[in-house]
Amino acid sequence: SQVSDVSGVGVDHELISAVPSWNPTFVSRNFTDEEVSYCRKQPDPAASFAARWAGKEAVFKSLGVASKGAAASMKDIEIVAQPTGAPTVVLHGDAKAAADAKGIKSVHLSLSHSETAAVAFAQASSS
Amino acid sequence: SQVSDVSGVGVDHELISAVPSWNPTFVSRNFTDEEVSYCRKQPDPAASFAARWAGKEAVFKSLGVASKGAAASMKDIEIVAQPTGAPTVVLHGDAKAAADAKGIKSVHLSLSHSETAAVAFAQASSS
Amino acid sequence: SQVSDVSGVGVDHELISAVPSWNPTFVSRNFTDEEVSYCRKQPDPAASFAARWAGKEAVFKSLGVASKGAAASMKDIEIVAQPTGAPTVVLHGDAKAAADAKGIKSVHLSLSHSETAAVAFAQASSS
Repeated sequence: SQVSDVSGVGVDHELISAVPSWNPTFVSRNFTDEEVSYCRKQPDPAASFAARWAGKEAVFKSLGVASKGAAASMKDIEIVAQPTGAPTVVLHGDAKAAADAKGIKSVHLSLSHSETAAVAFAQASSS
Repeated sequence: SQVSDVSGVGVDHELISAVPSWNPTFVSRNFTDEEVSYCRKQPDPAASFAARWAGKEAVFKSLGVASKGAAASMKDIEIVAQPTGAPTVVLHGDAKAAADAKGIKSVHLSLSHSETAAVAFAQASSS
Repeated sequence: SQVSDVSGVGVDHELISAVPSWNPTFVSRNFTDEEVSYCRKQPDPAASFAARWAGKEAVFKSLGVASKGAAASMKDIEIVAQPTGAPTVVLHGDAKAAADAKGIKSVHLSLSHSETAAVAFAQASSS
């Protein structure tokens, strides 16, 4: 039977103005080409980048691993938009290795933003 | 035994000023009579309407179904206040049908607001 | 097998300016000595106190018990920082008794703050 073992939760809150999506170095270090393309197509790209950035931070917290510092890339935590618009989490590289080592099989994620701020919530499950 | 299968999570964040609770059409299309009555009795009705609106959006996201657009009614997602003040989710109509089709048995919800913004978190479970 | 029964969720959102961390009575009534010491060592103590205050409120909501009013102490809900920085919840006194009575074994918590606001999310599990 399908059972869920919640391994960890993560929340993140960002002012849209505090996420430097105007900075190409920040964007290319932290977002995949697909994420960049998706955010640029949205009605408010800065808000979409901020929401996805908050999402990456929330997923990172839900994995319960030690941070490598503010300069670490967040590209290994990819957020893919489903046809319904719902975000799906795909882990690569070090993030995938950390999740595997903890027995984390999936991460649920939800994103939201107002005109000024973005909020993300993530939940890691071992099933 | 009682196990929880988390089917989906939803978060929503709204500026209180962006939720048009002063608009009778918006209110009557999206809130049940009991919800309207509850919000109007609270110390800050605009904040209460915004929190419940964020709650409906968060529950909707947790169900993982495609949106029918911004004009769709949210009345099918009803939020009932428990005697402790805790919000309980009651689904009707299309929202209930969507939840049934996905095997979702219950949705946990929590609401919060500050002076300026409301945040809601929802979690759908198949047990 | 390890399964998770989500008993309740809690979210809280606070403007940092609305949490009176400059008030010694508020601080000593609601925070343990370890929490005070931790918050005072952070780069932005007011933001850290606000995040921990939001965390206590979110944990309280996740327990699903009736509030004793705004004046009740929140010291029984202690938030301990792990070496990774992740917050862990330790319940004492009445909060522990309430959790035990409901079969709640653990509470997952995540905290976040921007320059202006703090958000916390808590999830109570009976496993």
